[in-house]
Amino acid sequence: MKHPNLRHIKYLVIFGALLFSSFTSAELLVVKQRFETTNFKTFNGQTIKKVAVGWESYGKLNAQKDNVILVTHFFSGNSHAAGKYSKDDKQAGYWDALIGPGKAIDTNKFYVISVDSLANLAAKDPNVITTGPASINPDTGKAYGLDFPVVTIRDFVNVQKLVLESLGIKKLHAVIGASMGSMQAIDWASAYPDWVPRMISVIGSGQSDAWTTALIERWAIPIRLDPNWRNGDYYEHTAPTEGLIAALMFITQDALTPQAFNQIGQTKAINHQALQTEPLHSINGTYSITNWLRERAATRAKLVDANHLLYLARASQLFIAGHGKNLTEGLKKIKAKSLFLPSSNDLLLMPYLSHEANQQLQDLGKDSQLQELSGDSGHLNGVIGISQKAQQIKEFIEQ
Amino acid sequence: MKHPNLRHIKYLVIFGALLFSSFTSAELLVVKQRFETTNFKTFNGQTIKKVAVGWESYGKLNAQKDNVILVTHFFSGNSHAAGKYSKDDKQAGYWDALIGPGKAIDTNKFYVISVDSLANLAAKDPNVITTGPASINPDTGKAYGLDFPVVTIRDFVNVQKLVLESLGIKKLHAVIGASMGSMQAIDWASAYPDWVPRMISVIGSGQSDAWTTALIERWAIPIRLDPNWRNGDYYEHTAPTEGLIAALMFITQDALTPQAFNQIGQTKAINHQALQTEPLHSINGTYSITNWLRERAATRAKLVDANHLLYLARASQLFIAGHGKNLTEGLKKIKAKSLFLPSSNDLLLMPYLSHEANQQLQDLGKDSQLQELSGDSGHLNGVIGISQKAQQIKEFIEQ
Repeated sequence: MKHPNLRHIKYLVIFGALLFSSFTSAELLVVKQRFETTNFKTFNGQTIKKVAVGWESYGKLNAQKDNVILVTHFFSGNSHAAGKYSKDDKQAGYWDALIGPGKAIDTNKFYVISVDSLANLAAKDPNVITTGPASINPDTGKAYGLDFPVVTIRDFVNVQKLVLESLGIKKLHAVIGASMGSMQAIDWASAYPDWVPRMISVIGSGQSDAWTTALIERWAIPIRLDPNWRNGDYYEHTAPTEGLIAALMFITQDALTPQAFNQIGQTKAINHQALQTEPLHSINGTYSITNWLRERAATRAKLVDANHLLYLARASQLFIAGHGKNLTEGLKKIKAKSLFLPSSNDLLLMPYLSHEANQQLQDLGKDSQLQELSGDSGHLNGVIGISQKAQQIKEFIEQ
Repeated sequence: MKHPNLRHIKYLVIFGALLFSSFTSAELLVVKQRFETTNFKTFNGQTIKKVAVGWESYGKLNAQKDNVILVTHFFSGNSHAAGKYSKDDKQAGYWDALIGPGKAIDTNKFYVISVDSLANLAAKDPNVITTGPASINPDTGKAYGLDFPVVTIRDFVNVQKLVLESLGIKKLHAVIGASMGSMQAIDWASAYPDWVPRMISVIGSGQSDAWTTALIERWAIPIRLDPNWRNGDYYEHTAPTEGLIAALMFITQDALTPQAFNQIGQTKAINHQALQTEPLHSINGTYSITNWLRERAATRAKLVDANHLLYLARASQLFIAGHGKNLTEGLKKIKAKSLFLPSSNDLLLMPYLSHEANQQLQDLGKDSQLQELSGDSGHLNGVIGISQKAQQIKEFIEQ
């Protein structure tokens, strides 16, 4: 089923790769690279015998290896932050507007690097390399399922550190990430303060509070309700696609706002009220706005593993900067100067979360500042609307 | 499992009956009454052969029968708007702070009446009388299930009108309702303008836009995912309790705000981060904040029918004041003076919805005004925080 409003869809929807085309003349061509390690110790004390993750870089590492900017990716994203894999690609990396030659994060100056997370959402995306519950457990020769250790934001940070160290890098120039990437950025600054002189948290948080934890739990619930989930042991059976689709529908809406969403819903093709007789006559009749959400989610679900979604949700719930007893303890360790860029109408990681972290850092005598992103797109302002703060980001990292 | 923060729970949680005790000296004692009718024509053109609903009244109907204030209830509520069934009841009706002798809606002056909705959520509550998919279909001798017609806000209005007419009432003094009750109130004013000189919409809307429709769909999705739902045909089998509990968890959170919610989550007993090792060590480990939400929902679920929830969700999605082609057409018919009381931090029926309806009414030259409710409780400000507008409500209805 096709809708005539693809233009809206293009601008409004989906975390992840499909955001907007690069409009710069200097096209950045990139290659996904592979990093492997063995016997990776997780934060909760377990061991993953074999870890493989993908990574990408933009720009050149200088001789001193001190021009490194690490970009940490969001829940539905991966290390494809900028550039294209080939000139024919329709879409560039999600922050291509920010990262590239002559752009705010100038790849003529900086070596920009990003790493696919453990348990990456798009486990089936050929451009993603990840290790998670869908990976083969070397002990059994079968997919881990729920035998995969619970992983945390700290584990993502530690994998990134191994990647950097494998390149001889011992310090960052800056770390920047959006959403779940912001969690990694601030945890980096707390866990390895001597590595991180500059930290930028976009649409982020210092911790997942009770509200956010419960909000994220909603993404897990439909997967667990799907009878095909089978307590995570579905790799030799039918996957829990219906539950996964529901979770992805929730995520899409959570990342938007009524203003952005209703631009879609009120176009003629999917007007939510007028001319829709099916919902009035059958309880199983569906609204076209629901169908639209569902179709997008179903397309996306083809590349996603449901257990990976559960693991990323848990990593996000477990997040607290520094992964210590409380937020203050974690923030105290930070040496970086910090910049928070929450979105003023974010309904997912609401701006109060960034304000709290920024305020606590200031109260601790740290160098921290905050500016709000504007725009109709809520959480997604931090991805599709990032250009509005390009100049501030440039100044912050070049100071 | 008991938590020590019952005081918080008491003030913060749950649509419905369990809100707060009456603190007035003059206790209102009420009796649930029963109304029956046959061959009720639904808005979508079907017939329900036998309808029974409960209703309550407070105060005395005067000889002219012109002192009637109709109170229309919210999604999880019923006609128990005020008073107690016996002096020993711990809880009074949900708006007992507003309705009673000498209160803002003064039962010494007004005859206040409220009616249980069709497909009422709490179908198993002994104090609720309703007809819906869990009722026996006279044609088959078995529960209707999804053979029950899709019902609309207009159908709730029409049942109320039959109840009023059975008492010889031909006109209201005012209609007032919160949330789904606000939908009934404004639809009353549009459908039967000569009946309604005054309309008060609390935490309400003029229509369900695409955003709200998709938000409400989230409550239906987990029920449909539960394998016990069986396309609504579960009355002779295990009920879809897990899906229902998930839906009720979502509703509880949607009606609150981070500020109110975190008061619960950050109390020591259910601190969402510190001392919670289970979520870190097992992907099936749960947060105490999730457990808390779940326990409340599980208790509530004992009185709720899952199909009824789907029907109320659909009625709410189908809502547009006047049930015509568009909102303007519906609002044009209104003769009432209108008062909108949205909650400034409502995340469920956001205040823009009331602002739009109020603005359109003003643009149409109607007498309409709006004041925002404040407080930490989001949507629930319209229930537990209603006293802050008691004086304005009193003046509005007594003018």
